Amino acid sequence: MRRRGILIVVSGFSGAGKGTLVNKLLEDYDGYVLSVSATTRAPRPGEEDGREYFFLQKEQFEQKIAEDGLIEYACYCDNYYGTPREYVERQLAEGKDVILEIEIQGALKIKKQYGDALLLFVMPPSAGELRRRLEGRGTETEEVIQKRMRRAVKEAEGIENYDYIVVNDDLETCTRQLHEIIKAAHNTPARNREFIENIRTELEGEK
Amino acid sequence: MRRRGILIVVSGFSGAGKGTLVNKLLEDYDGYVLSVSATTRAPRPGEEDGREYFFLQKEQFEQKIAEDGLIEYACYCDNYYGTPREYVERQLAEGKDVILEIEIQGALKIKKQYGDALLLFVMPPSAGELRRRLEGRGTETEEVIQKRMRRAVKEAEGIENYDYIVVNDDLETCTRQLHEIIKAAHNTPARNREFIENIRTELEGEK
Repeated sequence: MRRRGILIVVSGFSGAGKGTLVNKLLEDYDGYVLSVSATTRAPRPGEEDGREYFFLQKEQFEQKIAEDGLIEYACYCDNYYGTPREYVERQLAEGKDVILEIEIQGALKIKKQYGDALLLFVMPPSAGELRRRLEGRGTETEEVIQKRMRRAVKEAEGIENYDYIVVNDDLETCTRQLHEIIKAAHNTPARNREFIENIRTELEGEK
Repeated sequence: MRRRGILIVVSGFSGAGKGTLVNKLLEDYDGYVLSVSATTRAPRPGEEDGREYFFLQKEQFEQKIAEDGLIEYACYCDNYYGTPREYVERQLAEGKDVILEIEIQGALKIKKQYGDALLLFVMPPSAGELRRRLEGRGTETEEVIQKRMRRAVKEAEGIENYDYIVVNDDLETCTRQLHEIIKAAHNTPARNREFIENIRTELEGEK
């Protein structure tokens, strides 16, 4: 019997280091895949269809919306972005834990459809550290940093909707912790119905 | 800031190896303590008050019941057995994860009072393996084994009330798994209210 994968939603403040964390998780451990989003924006140099994104025409994207082929989608800067259901479903069926990096509105939409999805929120060790990381990039103006900090305040309101938080202080430790949380999640009764039913049937036979 | 411990309830079929598992967890990892039960039965040779049990007189025990000093209690073979609240509370406040080995009725009573308790159910890899382990003890008559197997059928009905199952196939692996599940549980938002509130306050100041 092959166990079904878990749909894992990773959110967190901009600057908390979710991207690096997720990449390291994929690098260090087997059994994970990243969900590939669909978008109508044009590919940038070096981007490959099916790797960074599934690049679709506007009509194709709207067709997908119409057939309920997207778990969630949003329009941002005149372009559609969304999560193709078929790709996610296939990976879950193959036993892969599928990781989706997405902000809170998307996360809540996913939880509604996939009650069994695992919602993880990546936090910096402190707000000061978050600011230092944003400043440290050296690429952002003070205005952008302030905008990010204000967005973090908004995002922080939703933390209680998540199943777990992970504090990204040390990348190595945090990656291991993320992996352990996901491993633990495989052990809930709801995710082991078949095993439990089998034991029940067997016990009936053995008694 | 010292994090509060988690009250961990461990149940499972007789023969699934909970006792051995819990002992190994205490041996291999720091931060755990075993809850010490109170009882009115007489100490057996070698048993020490406060180690195996808190040995109480019947009047003392009933006094504790009257003052709500027990998290749960039951009467078994004319003797009382119960879990003293004060000991558990003190350990939790000190940041220890307190382990309570108890059957399902007790587990549900605890969950009602400690909504944050973590309920773990230890399972054998199969019903056949459970029977083999019970037979392997060599001390039980076929009648006793059958009684245990029938009880396992009853107990199995309650598995969905537990937060996690652990399958005790290999002791080493299962102990590590148990530890990882408990570690993961420390990362829920509900168990990190103070940290989350601090970050929120800080973010407000930083924006």
